Amino acid sequence: MCKKQGKFTYITENRPSFIGYGSVVGKKEHDGPIGKEFDEYNEDIRFGTKSYEMAESKLQELALKHALSRANIKPDNIDLIFAGDLLNQCIGSTFGLIDYNIPLSCIYGACSTMGLGLGLSSLMIDNGVLNISAVVTSSHFCSAERQYRFPLEYGNQRTPTSQWTTTAAGASILKCDSGKPYISAVTFGKVCDLGVKDANNMGAAMAPAAYSTIKAFFDDTGTGIDDYDLIFTGDLGKTGSELLYELFSKDNIDIRFKHSDCGLMMFNIKNQDVHSGGSGCGCSASILNSYIMNRMLDGTFKNILFVPTGALLSPTSSMQGKSIPSIAHLVNIRKD
Amino acid sequence: MCKKQGKFTYITENRPSFIGYGSVVGKKEHDGPIGKEFDEYNEDIRFGTKSYEMAESKLQELALKHALSRANIKPDNIDLIFAGDLLNQCIGSTFGLIDYNIPLSCIYGACSTMGLGLGLSSLMIDNGVLNISAVVTSSHFCSAERQYRFPLEYGNQRTPTSQWTTTAAGASILKCDSGKPYISAVTFGKVCDLGVKDANNMGAAMAPAAYSTIKAFFDDTGTGIDDYDLIFTGDLGKTGSELLYELFSKDNIDIRFKHSDCGLMMFNIKNQDVHSGGSGCGCSASILNSYIMNRMLDGTFKNILFVPTGALLSPTSSMQGKSIPSIAHLVNIRKD
Repeated sequence: MCKKQGKFTYITENRPSFIGYGSVVGKKEHDGPIGKEFDEYNEDIRFGTKSYEMAESKLQELALKHALSRANIKPDNIDLIFAGDLLNQCIGSTFGLIDYNIPLSCIYGACSTMGLGLGLSSLMIDNGVLNISAVVTSSHFCSAERQYRFPLEYGNQRTPTSQWTTTAAGASILKCDSGKPYISAVTFGKVCDLGVKDANNMGAAMAPAAYSTIKAFFDDTGTGIDDYDLIFTGDLGKTGSELLYELFSKDNIDIRFKHSDCGLMMFNIKNQDVHSGGSGCGCSASILNSYIMNRMLDGTFKNILFVPTGALLSPTSSMQGKSIPSIAHLVNIRKD
Repeated sequence: MCKKQGKFTYITENRPSFIGYGSVVGKKEHDGPIGKEFDEYNEDIRFGTKSYEMAESKLQELALKHALSRANIKPDNIDLIFAGDLLNQCIGSTFGLIDYNIPLSCIYGACSTMGLGLGLSSLMIDNGVLNISAVVTSSHFCSAERQYRFPLEYGNQRTPTSQWTTTAAGASILKCDSGKPYISAVTFGKVCDLGVKDANNMGAAMAPAAYSTIKAFFDDTGTGIDDYDLIFTGDLGKTGSELLYELFSKDNIDIRFKHSDCGLMMFNIKNQDVHSGGSGCGCSASILNSYIMNRMLDGTFKNILFVPTGALLSPTSSMQGKSIPSIAHLVNIRKD
């Protein structure tokens, strides 16, 4: 049974472990610095479907296929899937996972969705509600651009602080096990809003959420940056990462050399024209379920914090002049 | 600790109970047959805010306020809120609940969202992950019309099978307790898709999901309609309810006299111009957290099934010619 420690953190007891993981990306992501880590990519941005939205559904379907294959289980062994994406009404998830015929809980936390799903899933497994659970999230550059910003055909200019929505999906399958990477602690985030209104600078809106959740976790557990190999956020990008360093520096903590942002890992920001870095529910999800898992299994990392952040705006709220509330959920992943 | 029974059903052990509940509706809902059951209504469709979307956020804020007051607890006693709505990126929830400063998990299941939230929340409480949890969902006629269909100013005709999105929010607060109505079992739904493509006939799309989840629950528990006082679906409306009777009649089961649909309870469909009935995440949520709770506390109902159904379409998927996948989540609520 997990135990609550401090105000916001849950410590697991029975090793909810990654028994399977999978990742699928687009060509641009495959061309990036960690492109070879992913299970599959496709030169066709539509992934053989008729629309960008259906391509995003395909990404989810394929990511879960790879995770099932690694876990060596069948779909009907999974008790419940937590899935989410950036599309209105989560259609990336509902259409993408329908053929697996597994009970489905859609969740929403923008780019933090993988963290939210892993948190819910691991605690429900740790305390015996579920035996096996899956978490799947995705994003697609083209479906996100036309939903949040402009049709691609318009060819709009992007600001220096803007981020590039990653075409990717990641899937994790969790079960209590031993010998595999496992989730040892979870901190669910609260909504932060410091009044940032620029929808092209989401890193700035999300940095306070990352700071707030990481600080709550440190306070609750009495640990600090020196206790972890690395803190992965996703996706603050260049602008948001620098703001995160500034926020921690006020507490006299320098996290710069213990921090990687998935938005900055996905692309080479110098020559891939992504400005401040990658973003999207699929960015940190695909990196966790490829590069990070691979490095935990080969012993490079033994104890990390995975802290995806989400900007909870919609085009409607932005047009109505509202600020961008943000949230970050944290999972502590270990491998003995 | 809850136990899984059969393939899809979880039986609780520690009485995750409704220690608080609240409901807020618009004027049209207040004028309906059960209008006096709700905690609060407002003549102003904008609830004192500048937009329909912010009005929906206000509905969530107020519903939770009433639930907190009945539970006689403070916001920071709540470990985690599950919240959802119909608006893109769940902005009804994120903006509505921000000031409570409680860890937030947004969930999405269209009109089934309250069932999904109660399922997750009750099982996490039953197995000791959470001590106190809240579930809040909402919908608003005006914000839904302009997002899913047409701007109100357009004055479009509505088809006879269409449903009227309810302006309402409901909030439940759960904790293990005794003497109060409690969730004794949960069945999470799978996505059903029988190929219905008419976005103005969501009852038809959702009826198979309701049938599938109720049947799974009956199969798993070895119970039948005679074991329950009433089965509440939400929101099949008139068209969907009749299709549900037809589906059960093929199994030689007549559920007609043991069934109420929240979409049909909310309005007088003969004179309130709502065609096939009400709908929306707030419809069944507000009825559960008013009429149904009140009738459980006064002894009218002792054992009911609450089975909200969701149509998982988006305007984008409909425009791309896709069908309407649907889902239904079931909670069995008892009062000794």
